[in-house]
Amino acid sequence: MKINHIEHIGIAVRNLEQAIAFYEKQLGLPCYNIEEVPEQKVRTAFFKVGQTKVELLESTDPEGPIGKFIENRGEGVHHIAFATEGLQDNLDELATNGIRLIDKTPRKGAENLDIAFLHPKDTLGVLIELCENPKQ
Amino acid sequence: MKINHIEHIGIAVRNLEQAIAFYEKQLGLPCYNIEEVPEQKVRTAFFKVGQTKVELLESTDPEGPIGKFIENRGEGVHHIAFATEGLQDNLDELATNGIRLIDKTPRKGAENLDIAFLHPKDTLGVLIELCENPKQ
Repeated sequence: MKINHIEHIGIAVRNLEQAIAFYEKQLGLPCYNIEEVPEQKVRTAFFKVGQTKVELLESTDPEGPIGKFIENRGEGVHHIAFATEGLQDNLDELATNGIRLIDKTPRKGAENLDIAFLHPKDTLGVLIELCENPKQ
Repeated sequence: MKINHIEHIGIAVRNLEQAIAFYEKQLGLPCYNIEEVPEQKVRTAFFKVGQTKVELLESTDPEGPIGKFIENRGEGVHHIAFATEGLQDNLDELATNGIRLIDKTPRKGAENLDIAFLHPKDTLGVLIELCENPKQ
């Protein structure tokens, strides 16, 4: 597998507007996009930080993945997304190596990326997303 | 404040060698440095991922910050470090804005960076480190 950079860091927040204000006013990072992803039951806000984006995630449903995450652990880093190429081949290789996958084949994520999550029980406590830009 | 990029993501792990093996063999990221930071009671392993580093942190003392973090929350993302310039000025500005600081003045971190942590109670659940390369 070849990872090129960290595409984004996903951070679960209770209140998107309050969180956007913190990142803009205190850290000086302008929000360039707000997007709702109904399949994931989240509203997201994006900030560019060099090569990487900060993606703030507010749950739109207490039963969604971010709603449950915040109920269990509070606000904080939810996942790290690595930008890769040949995503399906990478998933097949990981599965062959015995790494459990949440997504055995890529699905669409925010910003039209192809994405897949690995199972955090096999990734030392970090929820890892692999993603690929289909335009490349 | 001007943040240039994400300098590193700090990840707390129970066993550094096991974690290095995962990042090298499964994600294809070679470890380029292992360093002990006695003041922080950790052993660290570094991986370059584009502009950003992954910094794995293994506690050398159950009473150290990473030992306590793992005891309370298990393995996972411990902090995000943003690369900035004018670190002392940035800290002063945050303090003026009512953001609590763990370090009111910079101290030395791994890889000889000047670093300071913000208080996670004022940063929406994420432990944020600001850092500056003194050579620049």
